[in-house]
Amino acid sequence: MSLKLKNAKRIEGLDSNMWVEFTKLAADPSVVNLGQGLPDISPPIYVKEELSKIAAIDGMNQYTRGFGHPSLVTALSCLYEKFYPNKIDANKEILVTVGAYGSLFSAIQGLIDEGDEVIIIMPFYDCYEPMVRMAGATPVFIPLRSKPVPGRQWSSSDWTLDPQELASKFSSKTKAIILNTPHNPTGKVYTKEELQVIADLCIKHDTLCISDEVYEWLVYTGNKHVKIATFPGMWERTITIGSAGKTFSVTGWKIGWSIGPSYLIKHLQTVQQNTLYTCATPLQEALAQAFWIDIKRMGDPECYFNSLPKELEAKRDRMVRLLGSVGLRPIVPDGGYFIIADVSLLGFCLTQVSAFSGFIFIRIAYISMNKKLSAIPVSAFCNSEAKLQFEKFVRFCFIKKDSTLDAAEEIIKAWKNQKP
Amino acid sequence: MSLKLKNAKRIEGLDSNMWVEFTKLAADPSVVNLGQGLPDISPPIYVKEELSKIAAIDGMNQYTRGFGHPSLVTALSCLYEKFYPNKIDANKEILVTVGAYGSLFSAIQGLIDEGDEVIIIMPFYDCYEPMVRMAGATPVFIPLRSKPVPGRQWSSSDWTLDPQELASKFSSKTKAIILNTPHNPTGKVYTKEELQVIADLCIKHDTLCISDEVYEWLVYTGNKHVKIATFPGMWERTITIGSAGKTFSVTGWKIGWSIGPSYLIKHLQTVQQNTLYTCATPLQEALAQAFWIDIKRMGDPECYFNSLPKELEAKRDRMVRLLGSVGLRPIVPDGGYFIIADVSLLGFCLTQVSAFSGFIFIRIAYISMNKKLSAIPVSAFCNSEAKLQFEKFVRFCFIKKDSTLDAAEEIIKAWKNQKP
Ligand SMILES: Cc1ncc(COP(=O)(O)O)c(C=O)c1O
Ligand SMILES: Cc1ncc(COP(=O)(O)O)c(C=O)c1O
Repeated sequence: MSLKLKNAKRIEGLDSNMWVEFTKLAADPSVVNLGQGLPDISPPIYVKEELSKIAAIDGMNQYTRGFGHPSLVTALSCLYEKFYPNKIDANKEILVTVGAYGSLFSAIQGLIDEGDEVIIIMPFYDCYEPMVRMAGATPVFIPLRSKPVPGRQWSSSDWTLDPQELASKFSSKTKAIILNTPHNPTGKVYTKEELQVIADLCIKHDTLCISDEVYEWLVYTGNKHVKIATFPGMWERTITIGSAGKTFSVTGWKIGWSIGPSYLIKHLQTVQQNTLYTCATPLQEALAQAFWIDIKRMGDPECYFNSLPKELEAKRDRMVRLLGSVGLRPIVPDGGYFIIADVSLLGFCLTQVSAFSGFIFIRIAYISMNKKLSAIPVSAFCNSEAKLQFEKFVRFCFIKKDSTLDAAEEIIKAWKNQKP
Repeated sequence: MSLKLKNAKRIEGLDSNMWVEFTKLAADPSVVNLGQGLPDISPPIYVKEELSKIAAIDGMNQYTRGFGHPSLVTALSCLYEKFYPNKIDANKEILVTVGAYGSLFSAIQGLIDEGDEVIIIMPFYDCYEPMVRMAGATPVFIPLRSKPVPGRQWSSSDWTLDPQELASKFSSKTKAIILNTPHNPTGKVYTKEELQVIADLCIKHDTLCISDEVYEWLVYTGNKHVKIATFPGMWERTITIGSAGKTFSVTGWKIGWSIGPSYLIKHLQTVQQNTLYTCATPLQEALAQAFWIDIKRMGDPECYFNSLPKELEAKRDRMVRLLGSVGLRPIVPDGGYFIIADVSLLGFCLTQVSAFSGFIFIRIAYISMNKKLSAIPVSAFCNSEAKLQFEKFVRFCFIKKDSTLDAAEEIIKAWKNQKP
């Protein structure tokens, strides 16, 4: 083929994507899908109703302000001001994007140069690495580390960064660190003390922090979500990212936002105006309306920011029991809607199957039992060197209806019983 | 400020954007806005209704296939196969994007390398230039040229490329040409013969063609939209871009698509999976349903692809008469929903006002008459050298309700009467 018909160099080697594979599998309706982070519970009724109503208004179907629909940025600034010591300028300190994904992209393209280094904590939400590479920068990886603690439940809080190892990753080339709390896939909720270690290093090395907080509302009893941007000296250097998909269980809306100081946000705005210009108006207006409903009742148990984590905590506990009962050692998540489990303890060793061992768990479950259950191997959230370290873990998503969890339970129990 | 808090080099100098300025002006409800390409007519009722209905379906609010919602890519392949000699593979030869804007971006990022040259025809839809620069490539400009023809209406078809001048712009460095037909802002609809000249050069120089056809349905009596991708040897090297916003008068939905051979589309898919992953599900499903309605009645006058251009042709004719009657010499557009006019003939010379002369027309209309009418100077669609050549032209958008056009008429007539 002619050279002119080839890809641009910046995307060389970035074409594989597990979600593409995964969605094919998940498209089979007979598969119980605990893989992708895709709620099958109903989104709040008022969120859907707002969209239905707004679709009927002519003007709400036309272009809106490129950096964020006015009513949405107003609602977001009002909401988040409750959590920051500073005011948040709706027009200059917020950018509405195509999902949190779009926020990550515009932050990385707007701020990261060729030759820069970006610290990524493993396991990580899978797009971080190719996005950093597409910007011509080098990802520098550091793993969360843990050993099971005998005699008690293994918890996501047992997974920690080694402060010295972390310090060793910072250099004069470090442009940014990407943080994710509550963490996908482990469910770790970083503590104040842990975040202080990161903040100190960012300040010492004059480094940006891209803080992916899409699961900010989903923290379970005994835990608290803390925003690193509220630490002294950190607002100045942090882009905090949120997601409507995760906040209101409407992943298909693909609206997200970045919050930070105007001199950083303006570069993300520049990326946006040269990539897509503006996000969908009806979705933004419906979201703004939904936010107002919940902003007005934030102390109430019915507020979705309180009711959803409560609902999910029960599902988490059920998954912990189920996985534990069949010998798949679960790591109890403190936040988010994923749970990872060590499946090697079952005597079923993934690494021996094939190079694609990660995906084989899904297929084995299918082939050997005439049932299908999909989950995601945690190795999919690591760079190639660390794949081995995480290969024995599998991630399950538990933002699912009880009937879906019943079906999963049946499959997992049958699998256990069938084992020799 | 610390160097680490600066923008990435790739966006250096790309931060100005006229729409950002313009939307501020347009936000004033007392301004009659003929500036931005923003319909104030109602979108088809079934399009809005489909969205209202679909918002109520739980699953339609969750993630869908990243490269395009299955029902939408199926509808698009079925629709466009009517216009191509070849079949179109819904999964491999179509990518659904965030507006046509997103298609332009993913085509340019996926295919254009640093150091490449990209030919851009002036005047041009304003994002072409910064998108090419963001990819590190060099835009090579060529203007459409025309002189008013005495004794008859000036037409967009009088604006042509000089074939020799065009040939001189191609070199071994030329990676692509960006074509736009029907053309924004002139309304030019390229003829078969004109497109053949471009196709021959693309084939001779082994060059890609990015064909922006967002106004494909909006062609007026005596004209026909022709797809360059249907010319022999051109499917292989062309990305054809469409827009739901322009097709169904819902610019706020921001759904677009790229169509082309799989070995090109796959690179756009790679960009998409590393920038935003997937587009909004409810909007894609609603669009698919709307497309089916119109695909089934394509021969009928009620089909929106036929009824909208008919409705717009009357509005175009009205604008031609209005502008002509006050001495603003209009260029009659053969397609699209913009009309440009030479305003210097009024004896009102924009160039003498200020460096921002383009925007002054808007403000003068406001200040001098206590009325407000917004339009866009055509210099905004040119590179800096050619600004002078196009400075005397202003672009008006006519996809407006009759009451809006009435208000514009009143302002324009009052302005004329007030002149000394
Ligand atoms: C940690 C994390 N960040 C970002 C995203 C992307 O969110 P969105 O769908 O809003 O783009 C996800 C989605 O799963 C996620 O888990
Ligand atoms: C020629 C042209 N291309 C692309 C676009 C962008 O279309 P969309 O809103 O679908 O991104 C426009 C919008 O005005 C346009 O005029």
